[in-house]
Amino acid sequence: MARVSQEHLDARRRQILDGAARCFTRNGFHATSMQDVLREADLSAGAVYRYFRGKEELIGAIVTEVLDSLRDTFETAARQSPPPPPDELLAAVMSEVLGARPDGFPGLIIQVWTETLRNEELAAVLKGGFVKVREAWVKIVHVYQDAGSMDPGVPAEDVARVMIATAQGFAAQQALFGEVSVDVLRNGLRGLMSMDAQRAS
Amino acid sequence: MARVSQEHLDARRRQILDGAARCFTRNGFHATSMQDVLREADLSAGAVYRYFRGKEELIGAIVTEVLDSLRDTFETAARQSPPPPPDELLAAVMSEVLGARPDGFPGLIIQVWTETLRNEELAAVLKGGFVKVREAWVKIVHVYQDAGSMDPGVPAEDVARVMIATAQGFAAQQALFGEVSVDVLRNGLRGLMSMDAQRAS
Repeated sequence: MARVSQEHLDARRRQILDGAARCFTRNGFHATSMQDVLREADLSAGAVYRYFRGKEELIGAIVTEVLDSLRDTFETAARQSPPPPPDELLAAVMSEVLGARPDGFPGLIIQVWTETLRNEELAAVLKGGFVKVREAWVKIVHVYQDAGSMDPGVPAEDVARVMIATAQGFAAQQALFGEVSVDVLRNGLRGLMSMDAQRAS
Repeated sequence: MARVSQEHLDARRRQILDGAARCFTRNGFHATSMQDVLREADLSAGAVYRYFRGKEELIGAIVTEVLDSLRDTFETAARQSPPPPPDELLAAVMSEVLGARPDGFPGLIIQVWTETLRNEELAAVLKGGFVKVREAWVKIVHVYQDAGSMDPGVPAEDVARVMIATAQGFAAQQALFGEVSVDVLRNGLRGLMSMDAQRAS
């Protein structure tokens, strides 16, 4: 009997996660059942439970996947010379992350945040992913600083946190107030970057 | 019979809202009952229901109050000449807003965001408050631009949105990953402001 290829397994996993993300996004995490996910992914219970034991694992896997892809993108950016400036980089990444996912995905992001308040496992997943994304951003900030394009006296860790906060807040605004173009993010950051930190402080 | 003074009414309303905020922050919005709020505020049902018909009204009032105070603070800042730069202003305001509220308040903020996904009234309250805070920020940005400290070619509306996004994301990080000093926010913004938008773009 032919062994099932890794590609097949990965594609199946992808199919389940995409279906789950669509369900969670459309109806909310709590109002979605595993039955809904099976139906959406067009797979049998046996096929799905082979990969994920339940909704908790599904949401954890979706969070991990989003954060891993964010980290990879930022790590790739850190290796470019020079890396794109923050306004271009953040706009490109947000466009990529949200563009590849179902409409209304930002609503799922803020649901996940609230869910972590009472779900320690999910909180740990999110925290672990955040730390990795932050590390990738710290590398980018060091490149800016080494190249003389950012004040080297500012803690890179703090800039990393603020860049991530801006992306998180942008996602929150998408969820709360409707879609806005990533141009808004790019322009707003460019406005900040156009200020003179010496004079301003 | 002496009429109850406006100060007394305001103080009583304040007492109820503070009690409700403590309950919601500690146990979550859904797990809190009106009984919990009465007990926390140390008031009778009659005293509380005279002001608020239920939890929905309480959470709406808390959101309105936070957003009104944010708008007032930013409007005051816009009238200063010169207004504080974004790094100083946002750090001061976040410190004030979070400092005046119970520990763990950021957790309530992200709960409110999620709640708006299924509560249209609360969504309208939040959206109305956001528009007012954004208008206040637009005024500040115009002052920066008129004074020549920010590129006048950047849409003020976009800078306003990004400033608010940064504050929202900072609150989300506080809720998700534990308290961090507002110095992080100040430093991170200063790092961005130290970049050269011309060279960077």
